[in-house]
Amino acid sequence: MAIVVQKYGGSSVADAIKIKNVAQRIADTRNKGDSVVAVVSAMGDTTDELLELAYQVNKHPSERELDVLLSTGEIVSSTLLAMALKTMGYEAISLSGAQAGIRTDAAFSRARILQVDSKRVVKELDKGNIVIVAGFQGITEDMDITTLGRGGSDTTAVALAISLGAKVCQIYTDVDGVYTADPRLVPDAQKLVEIGYEEMLELASYGAKVMHPRAVELGELFNLPILVASSFNNSSGTLIHGGTSMEVRNKVKSIAYNLDIAKITVVGVPDSPGIATAIFQPLAAAGISVDTIVQNASINNITDLTFTVAKSQLTKAMHLVESIAKSIGARECVSAANLGEVSVVGTGMQNTPGYAAKMFSTLSKQGINIQLITTSEVRITCIIDETKVKDAVRALHLAFELELE
Amino acid sequence: MAIVVQKYGGSSVADAIKIKNVAQRIADTRNKGDSVVAVVSAMGDTTDELLELAYQVNKHPSERELDVLLSTGEIVSSTLLAMALKTMGYEAISLSGAQAGIRTDAAFSRARILQVDSKRVVKELDKGNIVIVAGFQGITEDMDITTLGRGGSDTTAVALAISLGAKVCQIYTDVDGVYTADPRLVPDAQKLVEIGYEEMLELASYGAKVMHPRAVELGELFNLPILVASSFNNSSGTLIHGGTSMEVRNKVKSIAYNLDIAKITVVGVPDSPGIATAIFQPLAAAGISVDTIVQNASINNITDLTFTVAKSQLTKAMHLVESIAKSIGARECVSAANLGEVSVVGTGMQNTPGYAAKMFSTLSKQGINIQLITTSEVRITCIIDETKVKDAVRALHLAFELELE
Repeated sequence: MAIVVQKYGGSSVADAIKIKNVAQRIADTRNKGDSVVAVVSAMGDTTDELLELAYQVNKHPSERELDVLLSTGEIVSSTLLAMALKTMGYEAISLSGAQAGIRTDAAFSRARILQVDSKRVVKELDKGNIVIVAGFQGITEDMDITTLGRGGSDTTAVALAISLGAKVCQIYTDVDGVYTADPRLVPDAQKLVEIGYEEMLELASYGAKVMHPRAVELGELFNLPILVASSFNNSSGTLIHGGTSMEVRNKVKSIAYNLDIAKITVVGVPDSPGIATAIFQPLAAAGISVDTIVQNASINNITDLTFTVAKSQLTKAMHLVESIAKSIGARECVSAANLGEVSVVGTGMQNTPGYAAKMFSTLSKQGINIQLITTSEVRITCIIDETKVKDAVRALHLAFELELE
Repeated sequence: MAIVVQKYGGSSVADAIKIKNVAQRIADTRNKGDSVVAVVSAMGDTTDELLELAYQVNKHPSERELDVLLSTGEIVSSTLLAMALKTMGYEAISLSGAQAGIRTDAAFSRARILQVDSKRVVKELDKGNIVIVAGFQGITEDMDITTLGRGGSDTTAVALAISLGAKVCQIYTDVDGVYTADPRLVPDAQKLVEIGYEEMLELASYGAKVMHPRAVELGELFNLPILVASSFNNSSGTLIHGGTSMEVRNKVKSIAYNLDIAKITVVGVPDSPGIATAIFQPLAAAGISVDTIVQNASINNITDLTFTVAKSQLTKAMHLVESIAKSIGARECVSAANLGEVSVVGTGMQNTPGYAAKMFSTLSKQGINIQLITTSEVRITCIIDETKVKDAVRALHLAFELELE
């Protein structure tokens, strides 16, 4: 019997009726003859409610305690799902992250999986059980509970699938796959039947909220096929894999966007070694995630350094950067919070300059000014005015003929 | 430094403000120079809410899954309490039952503690931490989560206190001690400064809801002093202990009552060996707890057998007993659900027949008909009409002059 690992997000198990629906989907998979391991997130808004409770007693709760608190959310949903399966006549058992052997480091609130010891899961599968695993959590060497941070349950599912040698990891969520663009913006957007790991990584990193990049990365490392599909219907979803059909396509796959962009420019920086470290190390230490970084060519050994952060972190970042700028002799710092970004993603873009030209000319025809550009092997991103992002997505979707996908 | 183990019930940690109050009480104890381990129950109605969720997905949830689900309630309150202490500047850490080394058998929903491995608790105390332990739960040899059933958190606290060699176990609840009678019924009721284990056991078993008998029993076995007091004020509470001052008192300590009594009589039972087993073994197997059992002297080898159960179990018990009665050739079964019981509790009652006579005459003067009588070394109990119970408690409190306590 092959093993299938499924993951159901919080909106898929938000109440008793949805939990029963998910149980039925799991049962359907079981009935096809596969062994099933299902990883679940906490019900609906549980995590936010627990956080709210924590902040009522402590404005800065310890991460160790917060992790234990939050881990209960997934335990609740996992037991309820096991109960729902049992009432339908299936053998099922719930396991916490600890019981499922998810061993992590001790970086509370953002732990990394060190190892999956799937002995107990295998034992329960061998007994004929459907195994329901509480996602998003693990246990340290010292038997302390950790949580995995953003994208945690997806990562639990992919890690378990790899450890168990599962044939596929199915991520069930509230969207029914990966689209050529956000269907709410672009009515003509098409669902992709398949996509490569790298393209998916770029899409996930650049605004498509379908899946967190760290789970995709893990899947790529072990070449595990990952299906992204909806838990609310039976449409076929999108398969993320590394098959050869990816290589020959060599075209734009999807348009991603992100409205949460703020920009800081340090103007008149003396261009000497160590300047980037002086700026970005304190930001990292303060937990500020820096996205795109662009350094202009230096003139007379003076350069400008621009980078983007999430809008919510702009004030904190600006505060830090202003004092750094002073200490390194930069002229001034300027910031802008009204930005967004739009990306075109597809394999082999770097080798096909026509794509970049087409992107820039499309934006230009729309009268959209490009403020920053960054590229990777499979992506071109332009930072533009926030109010122009949606128009840009629609125009690019049309220009790259993605409605014909 | 001596170790004090405290236990706070669900009503004491029902919301963020109450949790902060409890944290302050724990801090006060710590400030007096003792090491503190605090065991907590789930917040307010959490357990009922989790049960409600379970029944929404499965009318008969598996006990293994239910235990995992319910155990999250105490984990939530323990982390919040640790956070509250930390925000006040105290070092604190929460531990689940499993982490605190509460090893149990695998009797889900009613597990018994087999052993307490307090290594981790000791390690955290040695580091200077206040240790908050999630009550009511443990872990089996196979690393499955169990709950301890009724009185579970009290039992966790007493077991930990014994294992740690604590000087006292303090049970903080919503009443401020053990009274000579329920103060809501008897305005003159007096709080007892101290009480013996056996008297407390009888009180707990016969209707005083202050503490569950199993925790008292465990305390008695290891001669651990247990203080019962309120978490809402600073009154001194009642100390349960085995000191010699108990032995010489030799008088009635308290009047207990219970309104949840139903009676079944099997009429015309052929009096032969094995009849009791034939009746009570199937009841036990069905999880029906039988309280008082009375068998009349047999006439012509035919006897009547009467016993009491909780009202909620009467229908189920009657159903079972009727088919058993047929198979053993009994004449008929009759039941009554409108009963209650009243008990007088004190040391040395068995050796002082005057007490029983005084109890019976007091009830008789009130026009109260006694339906069944049972006694123990430290208790006399009469089963009477439910509507007469409160009058009986008041009359007995007066007759035994407990207002002078």
